[in-house]
Amino acid sequence: MTSREISTPPATPRTTPPATCSPPVPLRSGIATDWMLDPAITFLNHGCFGARPRVVVEARERWLRRYNARPIELLDRNRNELLTEAKRPVGELLGMKPENFGFVTNATEGVNAVLRSLSFRPGDELLTPSHVYNAVRNTMRHLIERAGGTYVEAPTPFPVTSPDELVNVIAEALNDRTRLVLIDHIASPTGVLFPVERIITLCREKGVDVFIDGAHAPGMIALDVESLGAAYYTGNLHKWICAPSGAAFLWVSPEKQRGIHPPTISHFLDEGLAAEFAWQGTRDITPWLCVKDAIDYLAALGWEDVLRHNHQMAMWVQQLLSEKWGVGPSTPLDGSMIGSLVSFPFPGDVSRFDDPVQLHDYLYDEHHIEIPIFDFGGQWLIRTSSQVYNTPDQYERLGQVVLDLMK
Amino acid sequence: MTSREISTPPATPRTTPPATCSPPVPLRSGIATDWMLDPAITFLNHGCFGARPRVVVEARERWLRRYNARPIELLDRNRNELLTEAKRPVGELLGMKPENFGFVTNATEGVNAVLRSLSFRPGDELLTPSHVYNAVRNTMRHLIERAGGTYVEAPTPFPVTSPDELVNVIAEALNDRTRLVLIDHIASPTGVLFPVERIITLCREKGVDVFIDGAHAPGMIALDVESLGAAYYTGNLHKWICAPSGAAFLWVSPEKQRGIHPPTISHFLDEGLAAEFAWQGTRDITPWLCVKDAIDYLAALGWEDVLRHNHQMAMWVQQLLSEKWGVGPSTPLDGSMIGSLVSFPFPGDVSRFDDPVQLHDYLYDEHHIEIPIFDFGGQWLIRTSSQVYNTPDQYERLGQVVLDLMK
Repeated sequence: MTSREISTPPATPRTTPPATCSPPVPLRSGIATDWMLDPAITFLNHGCFGARPRVVVEARERWLRRYNARPIELLDRNRNELLTEAKRPVGELLGMKPENFGFVTNATEGVNAVLRSLSFRPGDELLTPSHVYNAVRNTMRHLIERAGGTYVEAPTPFPVTSPDELVNVIAEALNDRTRLVLIDHIASPTGVLFPVERIITLCREKGVDVFIDGAHAPGMIALDVESLGAAYYTGNLHKWICAPSGAAFLWVSPEKQRGIHPPTISHFLDEGLAAEFAWQGTRDITPWLCVKDAIDYLAALGWEDVLRHNHQMAMWVQQLLSEKWGVGPSTPLDGSMIGSLVSFPFPGDVSRFDDPVQLHDYLYDEHHIEIPIFDFGGQWLIRTSSQVYNTPDQYERLGQVVLDLMK
Repeated sequence: MTSREISTPPATPRTTPPATCSPPVPLRSGIATDWMLDPAITFLNHGCFGARPRVVVEARERWLRRYNARPIELLDRNRNELLTEAKRPVGELLGMKPENFGFVTNATEGVNAVLRSLSFRPGDELLTPSHVYNAVRNTMRHLIERAGGTYVEAPTPFPVTSPDELVNVIAEALNDRTRLVLIDHIASPTGVLFPVERIITLCREKGVDVFIDGAHAPGMIALDVESLGAAYYTGNLHKWICAPSGAAFLWVSPEKQRGIHPPTISHFLDEGLAAEFAWQGTRDITPWLCVKDAIDYLAALGWEDVLRHNHQMAMWVQQLLSEKWGVGPSTPLDGSMIGSLVSFPFPGDVSRFDDPVQLHDYLYDEHHIEIPIFDFGGQWLIRTSSQVYNTPDQYERLGQVVLDLMK
C-alpha cells in the first residue's frame, strides 16, 4: 500500500430548495411492460448492470441465430461492415468520430486497455478521487505500483456541496509526478456528477492527461465526448443506453491513439485504433450489434424526455428520502450534481447486518427490492436509480421499508 | 522486427498407408438437423469459430432471458454458484481441478492474461514454432519487445513427417535466454498435432516453462490437462466443445498462479486465480453457463465416438484430397499427427486471386462452401474441419470444385 493521502476540508451539506418537488409524468402509460424486468421485483438498481427493453433482447436473439446459422459470414466476412454500421448511431449520439473509438466489453476494460498500453516509470503517479469505482482503483494501483510508481487516491468529500470542492480536490493533489488523472463522469458509489470540463481544463494547464470513466454517463446525461478535451473517454452502453451486457466503448483523442491497444492483443496489432478494437477474437459481438436497437427504443421516447424524466425522478427521490429518513441530502437539492443516481448514507440500524451484502440480501429476500448497498470508506451508502420504467410508488415503498428498519 | 531465425532441416513428406480408407459411419441419422447451421452452406470450417447444436443456442436464450428478468440476481448474487456449477463438467471432462482454472473469452485472451502478468527483462526470449496462431504471434512479439526482449519464431516444417521433427525444432531453438515456450496443441493454420508431452519434458529439463495453447484441443482430442506438466494451458470451449462464442478457459499450475491476472483487472485482484477470473465485470457470462449443455449434447453421442468419427473423417479426407489434388499428404497418412483438422497446400491456380480472402470468397460466393484459406509464410493452405454433422459428400464436392479450378 503506497497510496498517498491528501487532506481535504470536510464537506458541509447544502440544502438548496429543489427546482421541483413532484415526480415526473410517465413518458407513456404501461411503459414498464416494454422491459424484460420481472415485475415481481421492485427494481431500483438500473445502475449496476442496466436493463433491457424486450425489443433489444429479441434483436439479440435474432443476431445470435443469424450468427449460429453462418458463423464465418457474420464474424469474419461481414464483421467490418456490421461494426461500422453499429458504431454510427453511437458516434452520432455521443459526439465521437468513428475512427476515434472502438467497442469494448465494459468501461473497466476500456480503462485497462489504456493503462496497460501506457508505459510508466518509477516515481510516476496516477491520481483519482476517492469516489473511484473499485475495479478501476485495483487496475490503477496494480499497474502503477508494478512500474514502481504511486497510486494516489485523493480523499473526496461526500456529501458534497459544490463542484468547486471537487475541482479543489484535484487541484491540491496534482503535482509534477502526476502522469494521468482519472475522473468518473458520474461516480459509481456516490452518484456524484463531476465537473469534468473544469477538471480537464485545470489538468491541461498543467500538461496532465485526463481519462474520463463515463461508466454511467452515456444515456444518463447529454454527452459530446470529443468536445470535452479529455485524452481518453470510456463509457458503458449496457447501462443507461440499455444495450445488452458487454457493450461499451473506448474513445481516444487522435494524438493519443498511437500505442493504445485492447487488453487482448490480436490480429490487427498496430493497424490503428478502430481496426484493432474491431477484432478482439471469437468473442460474441452481438451485444455491440444491438446498441442501435436500444438507442432506437429510447429515441422513440425522446432522448431529452428520457433524460429529463430520469433526472426529475432522481431529484424528487432525493428530496423524498432525505426528508423521510432524516438524512441531509448528499448533493445540492437543485439536482445540479446528480444525474439519475442518488446515494444516501444508510439511515437505519445496521448492527444486525454483518456487511452491506447482508443488508442488500435482506431488502431483496424480504421485500423484493433490488437496490445496492456500498461500503464507501466504512460508510454504508444506499443508491437509487431512476430509469423510464420506474414509478414513484417504488421509491415510497423503499422509503417505508427502510424507515421500518430504523425502528 | 527483432525475431531471430533458426534453421531447420527441410521436411520430407511420408506416405504411410492409412489405417483406414473409408469415411466413418454417421453417429446418428439426420444429425445435421440438430445444429443451427444453415443447410444451404457446405460448412467445412468448424475450426474457426465452431458451431452450435440447437439445444445450446436455446439454452443460451433461456439464460439471457433469465438474466434480463433479474440482472443483479444472476450476475451478482448467484454468479459464484452458477460459475462453480458451470466449471464442474469442464474440469471433469478435461482433467482440471476447479481451483486451477477460470473462464476466459478465448484462448488468445488466456495467452494475453499470462503474458501480461509475467515480468520480462531485456534479453529474455519467448519461443514458439512458426505454426503459431497469428494473434498469439502478435501478443508474444508485442509484449516481449516492449520489455526489451526477443520474440523467437522457430521455423517449423510443413509438411511434417514425424513428431521428432517438431521436438527437434524446439530443442535447437531453446537456450538460456528462453523464458517461456508456447506450443499450439493443434496448430491453427496447419492442423498439426504437436507432441506436447515430449516438448514439455524437454523444456522442464532445461528449467523452461511451457504454455500450451489448446485453442483447438478440447473436444477434438482426449485431454487431461493437469497431467501434461505444462505451466499454463488455455483452450477454447466454443470450438470443438461447441459452446457459445466467448467460452474458453485458462488453467495455471498451482505453483505458477501467484501474480496471474485477467487482462482486465477488476474487483477480485489478488484473491486467487479462481476468484479473480470468476468476475471480469459486466460481461455476458451466459456463454460460460451453456458449456454444460454443449458437453451434454456431445456426451449423449458418446465422447469416444465423437472423437473417433471426426478423426476418421479427417484421415479419410486427407487421403481423398491428397490423391484427388495430387498433393503429397502434409502429415503421416496414419493420422497420428492430426485431430480433425487437415491442411493442404492449395493445389489450384491461384494467380486469378489477389489474396487468400478472395479465394475464400470465391468458394463461398460461387459454390457455397465455407472453408478457410491461410497464408502460411507465403504458401496458401486450405484447411478442412470434420465435426459430427459433416458428411463425406461435402468433401467430395470440395474436391471437385478445387479440381475444376486447377484446369
